[in-house]
Amino acid sequence: MEHIIAILVENNAGVLSRVSGLFSRRGYNIRSLAVGETDDVRISRITVVVNGDEQILSQIEKQLNKLVEVIKVQVIPKDTRLARELVLAKVSCRPENRSELISIADVTGARVADVSAATMTLEISGNRGAIDSFLALLSPFSIAEIVRTGTIALRRGAETIVSEDGVPE
Amino acid sequence: MEHIIAILVENNAGVLSRVSGLFSRRGYNIRSLAVGETDDVRISRITVVVNGDEQILSQIEKQLNKLVEVIKVQVIPKDTRLARELVLAKVSCRPENRSELISIADVTGARVADVSAATMTLEISGNRGAIDSFLALLSPFSIAEIVRTGTIALRRGAETIVSEDGVPE
Repeated sequence: MEHIIAILVENNAGVLSRVSGLFSRRGYNIRSLAVGETDDVRISRITVVVNGDEQILSQIEKQLNKLVEVIKVQVIPKDTRLARELVLAKVSCRPENRSELISIADVTGARVADVSAATMTLEISGNRGAIDSFLALLSPFSIAEIVRTGTIALRRGAETIVSEDGVPE
Repeated sequence: MEHIIAILVENNAGVLSRVSGLFSRRGYNIRSLAVGETDDVRISRITVVVNGDEQILSQIEKQLNKLVEVIKVQVIPKDTRLARELVLAKVSCRPENRSELISIADVTGARVADVSAATMTLEISGNRGAIDSFLALLSPFSIAEIVRTGTIALRRGAETIVSEDGVPE
């Protein structure tokens, strides 16, 4: 089963290596990892997508909480999670096929980010299902290059990672 | 100066820890890191944004190329790069302020991803400038939670990370 874990960490040079080392040493299978700034420059937020059963998940939480730089760990519950990923896909495309790719962009909500004589680069953000459908539509074309951010996620509603009660109404 | 480095790596449990460890051991200042799948399941692509001068950049390239799991390292040239980031921002918002936030979404190209009685969550993808403008517009509101993917990037045009000559026309 796939889990998404959000981790608030102190923004220092070694923390990412320690967090990813914890996963690899124990053989946990990371599907994606993204780390970005928060509104506090001292704090970064890491989102990890990992496969495993409930027991493994509980081990991971425990181990993460032992790291001194880890401020907060939250497993995002599947039923309330809002998860998104961003993908850039450069596709081989002759000028006569451009309109077909533009149609795919239109129906999927993707945007044309770049065009050259031999390629077109599309940009899409969405949940796993939307990204999978988009990539399936591109499969008749030759994909020259693809870059994915990995998934980020938060809980729907007023709850936040630091406030289980949500923001005050 | 800020550089964006794209790294193709073999998809194994330890590689992310070794790549991020390389940066932290040498004290390189990572601004963001994203790792996602490619169209080949055996290969992941890591995008790192790092600060440093040309000498540091060249050291980093050399060190990365020494790691056995590293297949290809490409510093994305600033003048031809297409760089994007995805941000989810949960903002405190009473029902009477929703229209104001929806207007901000409209002008910035953001999307409303979730609404609760006390919050609204917006989703935006764009280059650094677009994300900064968006966050500046949100600053009068109280940001309850923010998640960023970190930057991903590729070269504009037909060139790819594995083919300097571009895809065949």
